[in-house]
Order: sequence, then C-alpha cells, then structure tokens
Amino acid sequence: MIAAYQKRCQTRVDTALEALFQAPRTELERLYQAMRYSVMNGGKRVRPLLVYAACEALEGDLERADGAACAVELIHAYSLVHDDLPAMDDDDLRRGQPTTHKAFDEASAILAGDGLQSLAFEVLADHRRNPQDAETRLQMIELLSQAAGPAGMVGGQAIDLGSVGLQLDQQALEVMHRHKTGALIEASVALGALASGNTDELAHKALLQYARAIGLAFQVQDDILDVESDTATLGKTQGKDEAHDKPTYPALLGLDAAKDYALELRDQALHVLRPFGNSAEPLRELARYIVERRS
Amino acid sequence: MIAAYQKRCQTRVDTALEALFQAPRTELERLYQAMRYSVMNGGKRVRPLLVYAACEALEGDLERADGAACAVELIHAYSLVHDDLPAMDDDDLRRGQPTTHKAFDEASAILAGDGLQSLAFEVLADHRRNPQDAETRLQMIELLSQAAGPAGMVGGQAIDLGSVGLQLDQQALEVMHRHKTGALIEASVALGALASGNTDELAHKALLQYARAIGLAFQVQDDILDVESDTATLGKTQGKDEAHDKPTYPALLGLDAAKDYALELRDQALHVLRPFGNSAEPLRELARYIVERRS
Repeated sequence: MIAAYQKRCQTRVDTALEALFQAPRTELERLYQAMRYSVMNGGKRVRPLLVYAACEALEGDLERADGAACAVELIHAYSLVHDDLPAMDDDDLRRGQPTTHKAFDEASAILAGDGLQSLAFEVLADHRRNPQDAETRLQMIELLSQAAGPAGMVGGQAIDLGSVGLQLDQQALEVMHRHKTGALIEASVALGALASGNTDELAHKALLQYARAIGLAFQVQDDILDVESDTATLGKTQGKDEAHDKPTYPALLGLDAAKDYALELRDQALHVLRPFGNSAEPLRELARYIVERRS
Repeated sequence: MIAAYQKRCQTRVDTALEALFQAPRTELERLYQAMRYSVMNGGKRVRPLLVYAACEALEGDLERADGAACAVELIHAYSLVHDDLPAMDDDDLRRGQPTTHKAFDEASAILAGDGLQSLAFEVLADHRRNPQDAETRLQMIELLSQAAGPAGMVGGQAIDLGSVGLQLDQQALEVMHRHKTGALIEASVALGALASGNTDELAHKALLQYARAIGLAFQVQDDILDVESDTATLGKTQGKDEAHDKPTYPALLGLDAAKDYALELRDQALHVLRPFGNSAEPLRELARYIVERRS
C-alpha cells in the first residue's frame, strides 16, 4: 500500500519538479541540465511524500502541497550534490548513477547545488506554484530556511564532518542527526501541515512529534543498511561510514540494539498518531516502511 | 561625500550582519565562524549601499531597508566564497585576506556558502529583521531568489565558466555580466525601492534603468582594474582574467574604448536620475564612484 502511495506522490512531485528545469536561454542549458540531472534521478521522494501525507492527515487538498513538496526535494537534492563533492564525502555513486560532479564537473555541481537552493525559495514565494496566502507562504519560507540553513541541515553536515574519527556518545550522535537529516524531515511534515490550511494546534504538535521520531528512525536504519546491505541494493557505496570512520548507531549500540532502537522509534511515531483517523494511514505506513526498507 | 555615505551604510549593515553569526550551540561554532569570516571582512558593501540609497531616493526610512541590505550582502558573500573554491576560480586572496577555503578548509567553505544563502532568505522572511508587510517581504524573496538563482547570478557564473578561452562578442559578454553581477545589483536597487514603501511606478522604472547602467559600468571598471591595478591595491590577485584567458572588455574593445564605455554608462545612469531631487544624490555619487574607483 505504501508503495502505491509513494508512486502517486512521486509522479505528482516529479511532474511539478520537471517544469522547473527549462533553461530560459541557450547559454544556461548546461546548468539547467546539471540541476535536472541532480533532481530527476528516480529518487524515492520521501520528503515530498511526508509533505503530502501530513497535508492529507489534516484533511488538506494535495494540490496546495505541490509547492512545498517541490521545495523540500530541491533542498534535499542540492544537499546531496554538495555532500558528494570531493571536498566533502567524495562519493562517485548516488542512486546507482554517477554523482553530479562525476557526470558533469565539480564547478557545475557546486553551481547546480547553489541554483537548486535558490529555486526552492523561489517556488515557495511564487503564488502560482505555491497557492497559499501570503502569511502561509512566508511561514513556509521561514521554516524551510531555518531547517536548511546553518542552524539546521547545513549545520548538521558541518557537525558530521567535524565528527569523523571521534567517539560520539548517543546524545552527540543524535544532535548531529537532528540537524543533518531531522531538520528537513521535520520541516517537510510542518510544511505539509501548513499547506493543509488546518490550524488545529494539537494536531500540528502531534505531527511534529511524529516527524522527530521517524527522522531519527530513518537515520538509524540508514546506518544499519550501510553495514548490512550491498552497493547494488543501496545504489551508493556500501560500508562508507566504517571506511570513513564515521560514528554510527551500530558502532555505538551494536547492530541488534540499533535495530531495536529503530523499532522503538517507529512505535513512538505510531503512538502519537493514535488520535488521527484514516487520513493518517499514509503517515503510519511510512513509519513502518522506514524501518523495513532495504535501501 | 560618497566615502562618508558608504561608511555610514557599512556601519549600519555591518551591525545588522554581525548579529547573525552567533552560533546557537557549541557544535556549530566553527561553521558560524566560517560564515562570519566570509562576511565580516571589511567589504565595501556596495550592494547594501545600493539598497539604502534606492530606499532614500524614494524617501523611505532606512531602518526598513536593513533586512534587504543584509540579504543582498549575504548572497554576495556566499557567491564569493563559492567562486573562490579550487574547482571554480581557485583564488587564495580576497580583500587582501586568505579566502574562506584557505583560512578554514574546502568543506567548511562550501557549507559556509550554503548556509549564507539560506540565511539571506531567512532574514527577508523574518518580520523582526525585515519590518515590511507580508506581501512586500514575499516580493523581496521572489526578486532575490530569481536574481541569485540559475536564471540570475548562478547562471552568470555558469556562463562565465563556460566562456573561458572563448572569443565572446560584446553582446555575449553583456549577457554573461547581466547575469553574473548585474542581476544582484538590480535586485539591490529594486529591494531598496520596495523597502521605501513608495509605489510610484515611474520612479521604480527609472531606478531599474539606473541599476542596469551602473551594474554594467561596475563590471567594465572591474575588468579595467584587473589590467591596470596591482595585487596590493586590488586585495585580490591582479591579472587573473588574462591568466585564465577570460573574455574582458579591455580585451574586446581595447583599454581606451573600455574606459569610454564605462563613462558612457555612468552618464546614462545620471541621466535617468534627472527627475529625482536631492534624495537621489547618494545614487548619483555612487555612479561617479564606480568608474573612478581604483580597487
């Protein structure tokens, strides 16, 4: 069931994303190709799915969530392009394809990432692409800029780079992940909730707790997969964390305890969704999927 | 007179900028230091000055322009950090100091640039930092995201990188510069005009024409300085354009004709300001300064 929902969200956001990559003039074609290559790569679209599913949980209209869904994926895509650069994680493969700096060149990858970040905010500000009132669009921009910026995702990446070779305790590891991946996952849920137009504060609060739990679960499972899966299934180089001497949950807790922790986080996420009806079913399915996925 | 005005604008925007670089937690200190280093470097603040001077030309209150002034400088600073990277222009000096990737490291420079871009949009969205009504803040975000993004500044950088070693004609060179530097200069003037709250369409139009002329003049003069000045005065490596086989106005038109062109553009800028009174004096002074500066 989650596969079908995921497919629908993917088709929906991919249609909206594809429209962003028409170069406005010949001289810009290569840059727009590099941006398109970085985004239109068969990604699972977990963050757009969270936007749509949160909007749906609050009984909002999915059409009003397209702009937010695009924006979070553009931010995610730009972060991957920059993370893969030689000066950062130095990765050649992403979703089974050459990374952007391999398919194009380093300068193009830096610029494509920069351009994708600008585009995310352009989409949120644009009433045609993000049909919300002015206050809601501004709230979305405020939320996403904080989640993506130095106090959020970019900060998490900086903490991560500074942690290589260090022995982090669980608290420090979670600080890193709450910034690096958690902030954007929480923003995706918050943007979807905003897009719904529903202003029930308790419901928004519950969704935020849900987002915190699955954000962490996602990361724990990622660490587990880096140990257990193989490069072909992952679509990226397996065993990179260990090779780079990165702190991970399996290294810190042991593999079995890491798996238990992922399941506990899933259960926390399901628990806070209890007051919701059927409209939250996609969010529930996603919480289960995150800890069961193999790639 | 322009020196005093510039100093006032510099002090004003530097105070607002400085407040942005308090790391919200210990783990993020290095990233915030890298961002601060990239911005608080004694820069001339030409773009903030344009914001303030345009606001003043339309008889607006300068306090309402602080957010816009910060935002354009954050975008400018991020673009310099990324442009200086080894994979891009590979520059070791900027304003007489080691570039960010030299003072820190490449990964920190990439992340600092990314974080500065997010911050720019965060500042514009934030009512406390940018005290404008919601519609005006959104218009500012839309303008700046377009000017900074792939159809603006980032696109210009991509065109520039793709032009190394090519023989561009004057039209192609201007397309490049209109994107690379012109878009952000025009946005600075437009944001300042918006910040004023004045809605006189003819006046806004005139300011935009002014911005186009001085944006180009700025670039022509930059190319001239790269030939004529020395590294100590420039604060960056002199002769880089020729060494990198980059198309420039002196190379295309000859040095004397390039100088004439810069003066012609200054005169165009002064011409469109004729309907304005004394309030446009800073803009006039700036047009003169741009073609007279030695660094």
